[in-house]
Amino acid sequence: MSTSAYQKLGVSATKEEVHRAIAGTDPGLFPGAFCRIGTDVLGGDPDYCSALHSDDAGTKAIVAYLQFRETGNADIFRGIAQDALVMNLDDLLCIGAVDRFLLGNTINRNSFVIPGSVIGEAIAGYSDVVKSLLPYGIEIVATGGETADMNDAVRTIIIGATLATRLRRDQVIDNSRIQPGDVIVGFSSTGQAVWESRPNSGIGDNGLTLARHALLHRDYGTRFPESMDPGVDRQATYRGPFHLSDRPAGLPMTIGEAILSPTRTYAPLLKKIFDVVGRSAIHGLVHNTGGGQTKCKSFGKSIKYVKTNLFPVPRILELIAEHGQVESKEMYQTFNMGHRLEAMVDPKTAPEMIRLSQEMGIEAQVVGVCETSPRNVVEIRTPTGSFEYT
Amino acid sequence: MSTSAYQKLGVSATKEEVHRAIAGTDPGLFPGAFCRIGTDVLGGDPDYCSALHSDDAGTKAIVAYLQFRETGNADIFRGIAQDALVMNLDDLLCIGAVDRFLLGNTINRNSFVIPGSVIGEAIAGYSDVVKSLLPYGIEIVATGGETADMNDAVRTIIIGATLATRLRRDQVIDNSRIQPGDVIVGFSSTGQAVWESRPNSGIGDNGLTLARHALLHRDYGTRFPESMDPGVDRQATYRGPFHLSDRPAGLPMTIGEAILSPTRTYAPLLKKIFDVVGRSAIHGLVHNTGGGQTKCKSFGKSIKYVKTNLFPVPRILELIAEHGQVESKEMYQTFNMGHRLEAMVDPKTAPEMIRLSQEMGIEAQVVGVCETSPRNVVEIRTPTGSFEYT
Repeated sequence: MSTSAYQKLGVSATKEEVHRAIAGTDPGLFPGAFCRIGTDVLGGDPDYCSALHSDDAGTKAIVAYLQFRETGNADIFRGIAQDALVMNLDDLLCIGAVDRFLLGNTINRNSFVIPGSVIGEAIAGYSDVVKSLLPYGIEIVATGGETADMNDAVRTIIIGATLATRLRRDQVIDNSRIQPGDVIVGFSSTGQAVWESRPNSGIGDNGLTLARHALLHRDYGTRFPESMDPGVDRQATYRGPFHLSDRPAGLPMTIGEAILSPTRTYAPLLKKIFDVVGRSAIHGLVHNTGGGQTKCKSFGKSIKYVKTNLFPVPRILELIAEHGQVESKEMYQTFNMGHRLEAMVDPKTAPEMIRLSQEMGIEAQVVGVCETSPRNVVEIRTPTGSFEYT
Repeated sequence: MSTSAYQKLGVSATKEEVHRAIAGTDPGLFPGAFCRIGTDVLGGDPDYCSALHSDDAGTKAIVAYLQFRETGNADIFRGIAQDALVMNLDDLLCIGAVDRFLLGNTINRNSFVIPGSVIGEAIAGYSDVVKSLLPYGIEIVATGGETADMNDAVRTIIIGATLATRLRRDQVIDNSRIQPGDVIVGFSSTGQAVWESRPNSGIGDNGLTLARHALLHRDYGTRFPESMDPGVDRQATYRGPFHLSDRPAGLPMTIGEAILSPTRTYAPLLKKIFDVVGRSAIHGLVHNTGGGQTKCKSFGKSIKYVKTNLFPVPRILELIAEHGQVESKEMYQTFNMGHRLEAMVDPKTAPEMIRLSQEMGIEAQVVGVCETSPRNVVEIRTPTGSFEYT
């Protein structure tokens, strides 16, 4: 399969069209930061700034829908609420916000296929995350929620979240500080952190449309046509060998569990790192979401990111590449491929960060370095080949 | 047609199932207020509180899509961004928040049918609203935005917004203060306010699935099957006589313009009223969204809301009732029917509020009174009949 595997499904990993659409908008107070940062409109304090971030769990919710239809257990949607919340939380971590947030949620469903029990479980899922983070000094206050029946617009369900935050301007992590000579510390997306109740497959919540169609059996398209766009070439959809309850070799859980493994938040770890190492020692933080391992390319100036020591590829992602015949180059710019968070720091800062991470149950290592370059480039060297993204 | 006109389309106007799903959640600091209000997690000030509200333009975006496909003009989506923003803003007005907000937006599209130009216009639409309100002392700072291609989940497009705010606890409008003897002041949803550039049809952004199918011609379902749920009974969809460019008698604009008339914000008016009349004189504020004229039933205790002097029904809503054969009782619990905002106040406060509203170009009048009742009830007396909602 060519590098357009994802585009055949109507999804752009590089989002060029979106970037063009928002090109003229105000870049905010810290144009180089991971999220747009505004003035402190809610506090009126010139020493503070603010950010608000909205995102949803995307098509991972469709996999939960398939699992729900097979098992009848609506509680699988708790994890989807975690995905939605963490996709916002971990983006905001990357600007240095870590401990005080206001949370809202949105659920848009097709009422013909999604019963009220699913809404109840999703709402409980947000609450689970909020409670689990409180012991680590992370306070999230839930306020508004909106649930709508949108059958003419939504085939199954969309589960979203928004977080708002304020922070001191001198505490902002501004990725424009990334410089040649920095090392890149990666924090594993797999394993089990001390604040987690079970191991994570490492899949996160990007590339999920591709994952679903690459792994799952044609049956699902036939039985649940509402789970796909009728406009997509049928050859590109549900073209995998697996059912959700299958346990392929080397995967310590079912395919369903691995795809639906809720996205880990790195919040307790980053709070610890900010406290011990200090924010000022961190030149950049990148959440490897859309764009995967190439996400860093949008940050810093005149930097070549050279990644030569990545984590082993999580088994579930290997299966996607194998059964979906997705080329390695596309895999690295679609999925996190082993670490969903990376920090650009001075080499002498790295060991302490790695130690703190390991103490909290998350593998961490120096995965690469930052070099000088006429323009931003990402070079990834792996056992399956070397790839350059310009 | 029976009272189930809306349910046939898969939409619940009363949202009973949703209310059951969220029944156990924390009601917040002011359980009687229009929106859930949390502690001041972002400021840590015990005298303050906070709220965050997310909502989207709903299926009104589908009408914009049809118009866009017919005319090729993507700028119609600017109004949809206004709808999304105002559905949040005017809910927050009802707790007394009026002048400082943090804004985020979300756009989920089907990339096969929605080009990048639509995203650009929608984002410009948010910006238009922000700019138009600044001269009235209303400061909205735009921060994050997220745009995703979700073809397997979204048939056309969903355009959403989130607003976060902080306010002093002693400035909160707490609808539990609504009391027998209060009058209900209604603020018209039609006409042209001083901050608006054209007259409003009064449709707002609730009941839009019903509006579209009641008014628009069968052609639209045939030409644009992506604009509806294939699971809905075809008899219930696109069963009207109109094309978007039609101008029925008594409607001073085309059907398309009337359906797509962007939802008015009452923010400049309420800011003026809060300044001149004072928040403490206002016992309740209700944004007549889902539930229409019966929305007030969820607020106050042991109140019978008797509405006997409503505004003339906006022509576009008359057309929906007529061509959709929707019974009057259902119309009043689905659409705003003439005023989208109402205030419950002491009778002596009403004249000043009405004067201020008229000065700003919005008709206002006493539409009803609050009486004692064993439980909350809404009684509506109109030229087409009297209806009780229990």
